[in-house]
Amino acid sequence: MSVGLSIHELLTPVAVIDEAIMENNIKVAQEYFDRIGRNFRPHIKTHKIPALASLQTAAGAKGINCQKLSEAEVFADAGFTDILITFNMLGAARLERLKALNARVDLQVVADNSAVVEALAGSFDADRPLKVLVECDTGGGRNGVQSPADALHLAETIDTCAGLTFHGLLTYPKPASEAEVQAFFAETIGLLNRAGLKCPVVSHGGSPSLFESHLVASATEHRAGTYIFNDRAMMRAGMCDLDDCAMHVIATVVSRPTETRAILDSGSKALTSDLLGFADHGFIVDYPDATIVSLSEEHAVVDLSGSRNRPEIGDRVRIVPNHTCVVANLFDQLVFHRDGVVTRMETVAARGKVV
Amino acid sequence: MSVGLSIHELLTPVAVIDEAIMENNIKVAQEYFDRIGRNFRPHIKTHKIPALASLQTAAGAKGINCQKLSEAEVFADAGFTDILITFNMLGAARLERLKALNARVDLQVVADNSAVVEALAGSFDADRPLKVLVECDTGGGRNGVQSPADALHLAETIDTCAGLTFHGLLTYPKPASEAEVQAFFAETIGLLNRAGLKCPVVSHGGSPSLFESHLVASATEHRAGTYIFNDRAMMRAGMCDLDDCAMHVIATVVSRPTETRAILDSGSKALTSDLLGFADHGFIVDYPDATIVSLSEEHAVVDLSGSRNRPEIGDRVRIVPNHTCVVANLFDQLVFHRDGVVTRMETVAARGKVV
Repeated sequence: MSVGLSIHELLTPVAVIDEAIMENNIKVAQEYFDRIGRNFRPHIKTHKIPALASLQTAAGAKGINCQKLSEAEVFADAGFTDILITFNMLGAARLERLKALNARVDLQVVADNSAVVEALAGSFDADRPLKVLVECDTGGGRNGVQSPADALHLAETIDTCAGLTFHGLLTYPKPASEAEVQAFFAETIGLLNRAGLKCPVVSHGGSPSLFESHLVASATEHRAGTYIFNDRAMMRAGMCDLDDCAMHVIATVVSRPTETRAILDSGSKALTSDLLGFADHGFIVDYPDATIVSLSEEHAVVDLSGSRNRPEIGDRVRIVPNHTCVVANLFDQLVFHRDGVVTRMETVAARGKVV
Repeated sequence: MSVGLSIHELLTPVAVIDEAIMENNIKVAQEYFDRIGRNFRPHIKTHKIPALASLQTAAGAKGINCQKLSEAEVFADAGFTDILITFNMLGAARLERLKALNARVDLQVVADNSAVVEALAGSFDADRPLKVLVECDTGGGRNGVQSPADALHLAETIDTCAGLTFHGLLTYPKPASEAEVQAFFAETIGLLNRAGLKCPVVSHGGSPSLFESHLVASATEHRAGTYIFNDRAMMRAGMCDLDDCAMHVIATVVSRPTETRAILDSGSKALTSDLLGFADHGFIVDYPDATIVSLSEEHAVVDLSGSRNRPEIGDRVRIVPNHTCVVANLFDQLVFHRDGVVTRMETVAARGKVV
């Protein structure tokens, strides 16, 4: 119902997406992966909107990446047939749903330990085996087997399970660690070769170093989510410029209690509290020297002491959030625009899908 | 459909509420305010569930407090008739909706500046005037007029507007600042008296120092949200004990990559990144010496190096979140239980209501 309106007429706070910037982000990333001859699998956790994943696959992406079973179910319902879930699956009810999903799409999951492999093996059978990638901790310090030897061992375990197919390796790396990732992958692939295990997929990931993916020579695919919108953390990583940030949270100045303090109507329930290493809560495009020093749930407190230009009550500001993936998850809908004119609203279909 | 199940059978992550603890939290707070002879107005931002606000008003609460217009609309639809919105209202479309709301409930709003008062005055008329409280910054450093003289001045401005009624004073204080709040209120009330302005409501607020509300002798009501569930920040404030925390996020250990690292399936899309001054991301009841050192969107990284007991893959843990109000906002439903048996599910009806 807002189509055709100016984004400046929308009630705030509101998360808006610039269609042209988003389209360019999709295009530039896909062209890079086409150029280096590598599959690209966008992570839908950033937007959770099937219509956007359709733009990504239409551009050439090979399937999608989900982080949770419930997200994958939403995207399967929307017609996506090539889905990778990059999260260990545990729990009888979850495995039952996973099996139902595997029956209707080309599904891959990950495992980084034998308990998860055992649980998967107990739920799947040789009629419709489940493809499993071994998740490797190449330095990211989250999930993952700790060494190439451990990766081989887990791959061999998977290979002995009738209901499972060892399908390859995966990492979510720390940024700028292509050499470590390549070393880990290369050594593991050597071990797998010697053991006679095929490794069709070697999956690298992350938006911050997306355009360095070619440095991981062994990888066959790359996964990334944030790149579609970009955000302040991606700017800091040198992955994009301000002009490449497709998402803005538009907020209104609702109070100016003092000369140097402004209050915006975008709190942690609009921007989230994700700092990602920043000391403040987003970049105000229109007042680059102003600082969002703290958030309450519905208030942002802005320090204007370093800002010559100071907004008045009722003024609207555009904020590039620290982390776009968590912002989309707070809104029921994202608003899209071209040159400030609303083109469409899209429901964040997989929002709230946490299991 | 989960009623009667054990909470240990629910897929994780899940936010569960202990009915008995919640009922006791409601009872103890209301008894305190009954004892000191002060109205209590629960803030529904914590739960956003009409059925819970009904428990609060049934216990004796006078009306409810909302933070946004859209929340208030949801609660008006659910039958609540005494609503205070503690946020400056700006924007033509918002004021139109505010006027419609004022036509059907006993509504109060706040203002801390003349621009907001002008906007309100332009939208309301003497047939059905809007009650406006002057928000005072008594040291909280967020919204609010900066001095009793400024409060008087804004009250006088409101009083001259045909469509508005000056209805009193309000603060959201910094914790443990009862003396400052009382001094600000007392001086302002003196000024209002001398100016011949009636001040029916003097609204104090906050859960951290809820049980110190009597120290603000001038207050006629208190507003608080978090107290219904309590959380880690309330424990730190000395406002409650661990046994008074009604909300837990139940998570599963999905990986144990190293001796001292566990990964839970409760990331920032379940716990939020709200630190509230803590260095870590929630208190694991079952492993009190373990530390949630970082969150990704769907992963919690736990450092077990200080913990003698260490969970295995598949084990479930209960987490008291740092900040309960933002957790409820991430889930579509909260699950209620008595002694671990699910009693009901409640939709978080006003979740996503940001405008």
